[in-house]
Amino acid sequence: MEAVTQSLASLSLKPTAQISHAATSSPAAWKDALSSTQGVPASFELIKTLVYKPKTAKTATPVPVVVIAKESTTASSGAIGKKLNLKELRLASEDLLKEFFALDKDSLSPLALDKNTFPKVVTVVDASINSSDSVFALHALSSDSTVFMQGSDIVTYLKSLETAEVQVQELDFSSLEASAPATAPAPAATTASGRNREDARIEGAVQIAIGVKKEVDFPTWYTNVLIKADMLDYYSVSGCYILKPWSYSIWEEIQRWFDSEIKELGVQNSYFPMFVSAKVLEREKDHIEGFSPEVAWVTKAGNSDLEEHIAIRPTSETAMYPYYSKWIKSHRDLPLKLNQWNSVVRWEFKNPQPFLRTREFLWQEGHTAFLTKAEADTEVRQILDLYRRVYEELLAVPVIPGIKSEKEKFAGGLYTTTIEGFIPTTGRGIQAGTSHCLGQNFSRAEMFNITVEDPNDPTGQGKIHVWQNSWGLSTRTIGVMVMVHGDNQGLVLPPRVASIQVVIVPCGITVKTSDEERAKINQACDDLAKSLKKAGIRAKADLRDIYTPGYKFNDWEQKGVPLRLEIGPNDLKKKQTLSVRRDTGVKDPIPLEGLESSVSSLLQTIQNDMFKRAQDTYFSRLKEVTKWEDLVPTLDAKCVAVIPWCEVEACEDDIKERSAKASEEQADERAPSAGAKSLAIPFDQSKWAPIEPGKTKCPACGKDAKRWTMFGRSY
Amino acid sequence: MEAVTQSLASLSLKPTAQISHAATSSPAAWKDALSSTQGVPASFELIKTLVYKPKTAKTATPVPVVVIAKESTTASSGAIGKKLNLKELRLASEDLLKEFFALDKDSLSPLALDKNTFPKVVTVVDASINSSDSVFALHALSSDSTVFMQGSDIVTYLKSLETAEVQVQELDFSSLEASAPATAPAPAATTASGRNREDARIEGAVQIAIGVKKEVDFPTWYTNVLIKADMLDYYSVSGCYILKPWSYSIWEEIQRWFDSEIKELGVQNSYFPMFVSAKVLEREKDHIEGFSPEVAWVTKAGNSDLEEHIAIRPTSETAMYPYYSKWIKSHRDLPLKLNQWNSVVRWEFKNPQPFLRTREFLWQEGHTAFLTKAEADTEVRQILDLYRRVYEELLAVPVIPGIKSEKEKFAGGLYTTTIEGFIPTTGRGIQAGTSHCLGQNFSRAEMFNITVEDPNDPTGQGKIHVWQNSWGLSTRTIGVMVMVHGDNQGLVLPPRVASIQVVIVPCGITVKTSDEERAKINQACDDLAKSLKKAGIRAKADLRDIYTPGYKFNDWEQKGVPLRLEIGPNDLKKKQTLSVRRDTGVKDPIPLEGLESSVSSLLQTIQNDMFKRAQDTYFSRLKEVTKWEDLVPTLDAKCVAVIPWCEVEACEDDIKERSAKASEEQADERAPSAGAKSLAIPFDQSKWAPIEPGKTKCPACGKDAKRWTMFGRSY
Repeated sequence: MEAVTQSLASLSLKPTAQISHAATSSPAAWKDALSSTQGVPASFELIKTLVYKPKTAKTATPVPVVVIAKESTTASSGAIGKKLNLKELRLASEDLLKEFFALDKDSLSPLALDKNTFPKVVTVVDASINSSDSVFALHALSSDSTVFMQGSDIVTYLKSLETAEVQVQELDFSSLEASAPATAPAPAATTASGRNREDARIEGAVQIAIGVKKEVDFPTWYTNVLIKADMLDYYSVSGCYILKPWSYSIWEEIQRWFDSEIKELGVQNSYFPMFVSAKVLEREKDHIEGFSPEVAWVTKAGNSDLEEHIAIRPTSETAMYPYYSKWIKSHRDLPLKLNQWNSVVRWEFKNPQPFLRTREFLWQEGHTAFLTKAEADTEVRQILDLYRRVYEELLAVPVIPGIKSEKEKFAGGLYTTTIEGFIPTTGRGIQAGTSHCLGQNFSRAEMFNITVEDPNDPTGQGKIHVWQNSWGLSTRTIGVMVMVHGDNQGLVLPPRVASIQVVIVPCGITVKTSDEERAKINQACDDLAKSLKKAGIRAKADLRDIYTPGYKFNDWEQKGVPLRLEIGPNDLKKKQTLSVRRDTGVKDPIPLEGLESSVSSLLQTIQNDMFKRAQDTYFSRLKEVTKWEDLVPTLDAKCVAVIPWCEVEACEDDIKERSAKASEEQADERAPSAGAKSLAIPFDQSKWAPIEPGKTKCPACGKDAKRWTMFGRSY
Repeated sequence: MEAVTQSLASLSLKPTAQISHAATSSPAAWKDALSSTQGVPASFELIKTLVYKPKTAKTATPVPVVVIAKESTTASSGAIGKKLNLKELRLASEDLLKEFFALDKDSLSPLALDKNTFPKVVTVVDASINSSDSVFALHALSSDSTVFMQGSDIVTYLKSLETAEVQVQELDFSSLEASAPATAPAPAATTASGRNREDARIEGAVQIAIGVKKEVDFPTWYTNVLIKADMLDYYSVSGCYILKPWSYSIWEEIQRWFDSEIKELGVQNSYFPMFVSAKVLEREKDHIEGFSPEVAWVTKAGNSDLEEHIAIRPTSETAMYPYYSKWIKSHRDLPLKLNQWNSVVRWEFKNPQPFLRTREFLWQEGHTAFLTKAEADTEVRQILDLYRRVYEELLAVPVIPGIKSEKEKFAGGLYTTTIEGFIPTTGRGIQAGTSHCLGQNFSRAEMFNITVEDPNDPTGQGKIHVWQNSWGLSTRTIGVMVMVHGDNQGLVLPPRVASIQVVIVPCGITVKTSDEERAKINQACDDLAKSLKKAGIRAKADLRDIYTPGYKFNDWEQKGVPLRLEIGPNDLKKKQTLSVRRDTGVKDPIPLEGLESSVSSLLQTIQNDMFKRAQDTYFSRLKEVTKWEDLVPTLDAKCVAVIPWCEVEACEDDIKERSAKASEEQADERAPSAGAKSLAIPFDQSKWAPIEPGKTKCPACGKDAKRWTMFGRSY
């Protein structure tokens, strides 16, 4: 800020005032904060600073558009884009704001533009600012600090940054607005991507809410929910995120459950180092091909260059199996079943997405070895079923178990089983967890040579290469859960994984309420929380005295707490509490008598209902497709196409290519691909008409169909 | 091996036979394996290959001495060293074997010497091999493969590797042996380090045991115990180790207990990325100075060089606190208490030691922020006390809580509290866990600027920089436990952290035992295990039918299982079982009736006794020292000197330097330093005579003493 102050001074521009206040994360909160702070001018208008990113080729460096307007003005991105001849302006991601301005959106201000940043962006100012007599409030590069300036001074400052190539664009927003409806491109018929981004903003939801609608701008909605629900924060290393307690506790719940289940199966935990030498990593060619472009390399320690570069594990097959070879000497050493809870690193250059695609992520990886294929086969499915239960029973997220096509299986394995999830809002499938049978590929002589004597060979000379599995489940679980259940009020948590299942809010306290009565109500809330906790329910009384009940309702709704109990003077008289479900909003009074058991069963109902609703949606979007021409329309209707498929790899490539071409205009740059790939061949084929050998044909290539296979766009 | 086979062929040397067999880890096991394998010559002698490392300056590249002898020959390292004029030959570490030969000790063989390795070592062969008519068995570079050769062929092979500079040394071991006692240097009076290493070998303990005595060659004993108890394995990246389930389960037990305790204190778990940008890492100069030489840097991803080098966290203060600054906006956001269970990397170039000093290690790091110093002070001590309880109550390891001197405190912090452990065998102190008060150093304006408004300032303008703590406990816990409790039979586990607390072994089964009786005994063992497990005791019946009871006894003793129950036909008749304590070896019959409760209380007794014994030892080694001349003798007697200390930093430097000089000849190259440093200023000063202000003087510098302070050699 000092540099800016100097610039202002050198231009003889003197701010009316500069003050500090509570940090704010919305215009309303900002206004509130200012109104309760000393030294603020009697009347002023807020300035909003919006940053948009125009659609560009993925490889091009984006030129953000910085729009400076009065808070009260509608600044239609469609109209501005049209005027500037820029396609599809979208609100920029926090990452982009960080990258260009080293600021978050709540701290943005015209003053973020300086000699360095101005030439890299397009700056658009509402012409009415320059001509206004008002005093304007601008953030002083921080959401807890405000500068007050004349509108003309703001423009003078911006113009001082102009270069021969780059000038400030002054536009009359009011006339733009008037002409916008007629000139803006018509929204696309079947998808949201063409719509004016402004539609995504939720009316009246300014103070504390998600800001954009899930159905309209899903990617922004998703990151907003994560930030506002306190699940996650951005981090200074791109592609990495901080898991805050609100999300990490969900991971702990998953760990607790899954860990105890695999221990029942005889799996033991261990820890292998995060580092892998290049030689070991590159041992299996097919396998490593899948990972090598994403491997992070340590080449220096302190100031010394390392003689051999050392990889950070992207997964641990090749790191672990040399030791399996050493440890497994006899069939009595089998089965060997090890698991580890760790983090792995895949340095992807694609657009990162919290939980779904991050450069470091947490997971568990199990690695097991057996004497026979039958044992390995059995375990692959046992683990897959545990993964299914993590999603369905803990996260209330439906998944479909099946097998991956040859093209989509784990690199170097024999076959991959998967549970496939589905994000209804985008109509995309998502790989939710995989359990691989590696066969004998890693144990064969040319590889890690993991052998035992054959106990059934009478000569005692026979050797058996062991059968291996590997299986992993990651924090992606959390992202899928958020995407499936969240709504326009924020996160919706299934009770089983919510670290707070019930929040109790004192209500009906007014200025007339006596201190004694207030204390009585608070006490009742506190008692209730205690007795629920005693009954094993994770309850919390929100007795913060600086917030209104309304604020608290919003706050906990945003964070997704499954059940709210309200208690006011009347409730106390009636010996009841008003329950409000987060998933449905349904309100219902419950007698205080026997509350523990009614709350407990209500939580169970919420859990079941959430799963049931999500499952109904998923199933309703599985569409049987037997004619090629129905495929792309099915995808465009946000459905999964289930086709009687030939299972030929060339056909899969072809389907992807043809479907991508057919739906090119729908491309969503933040989603990986518009083409359909095979998601899974469901184990349960009974949902669809039996395939008649020789009769049922693959709709893509006309060859004989083998099994019903889910094809869809995917993450 | 192929290359060697070719060399042999090119020298026209033809092995008598080459065979594969079960992997072996001792001469006896090797002999056993050979005797049960087909194709083995009727008579043969085993060859042993020992690698020694002479004492050299730490910076010099060591030249290992490879000694090739008949297994039956005594090859005195003292006598060989004397003959070759090399000081203090010690058995080489596994790391060194890896480095030079890429082999472990069980796979070593004269054939490990080839064109590459021969010139780098001194090769000594017993002259009697060349002259013998026997067939000799050599490992074929693997412990599960053996080559049989004539003695003269072995020597011919070795001589084929000679260069102008380096020749094979043929020595007559039998004459050496005869003259050794007279010519070997006398052992030093007060320490083990000068003794003949051969003393460390345990008589009759060849088959499955630790191989060397704890009191004689402690470093080798320590790694042998870890390997043989299945706690750990070496890994292909130097300084990194694999934590196998037998050790990882101890860590899980510590995690479970500590995690639930800190949650009671309101600490929440979270996860911050493992990467830190250079800029953020280097923010606090004092702090980073302590770590920067050890930081591992990621500079590449796939084939691309990263624009900015990224560090792997050595600890997370600077990675986390920018976000604390962002999240803490009001005194209502305090206290903020976050913890994470993660791994950190410190790329040390000193000799690594499993658990104690490794390049990657597992720990938890807690980072908390408070409004007042008083709250921070309180928490520092609460956490330290939890650390004390992890050691004392879970691991049965006594520690002494205290404060670190200014010199030894955490870089960048205000003060460091510590629990100091003690390894009686070496007489060295070990820092067992630290809880730091960081004061306001990281929160001040020039650093991370973590402030809130002062709630007690009536003007509302006052700012408070928050008070911070950080605290960490690592897998070092496990190493300390092994060192304190282990004995010459192997590991000794305290019951509370043993993943198997009770092992039940069927006994008294002979060739005459009927199948029915055998089944009955096995069934009784199995039933017992089940009923103990039902009572919450971690019990296991060892029903492996290929091993003798004696083998099983050794096996479980080596792994440290706290209690063994033996059941034979007579026990069944008498309705009893014979209990054998691992810690004392005491045997005692226990009635089967009410066994759950007697075993449960016996386990409790073992836990208490183990702690009590270790504590008595520790306390008996704390020596009050008030005269300088007593200091080094106290250290040499493997004690900790508790001195009335002036607490002046220059005096601490001086003590270290003078005590190092005085004990130079005792230097143990595998231990960091012979000088004494301050270990802790114990909180409880009541053990020693009250310090009289102005009268009691520091024995090192003569200045006024402040508090009794523990000085010792340390890890």
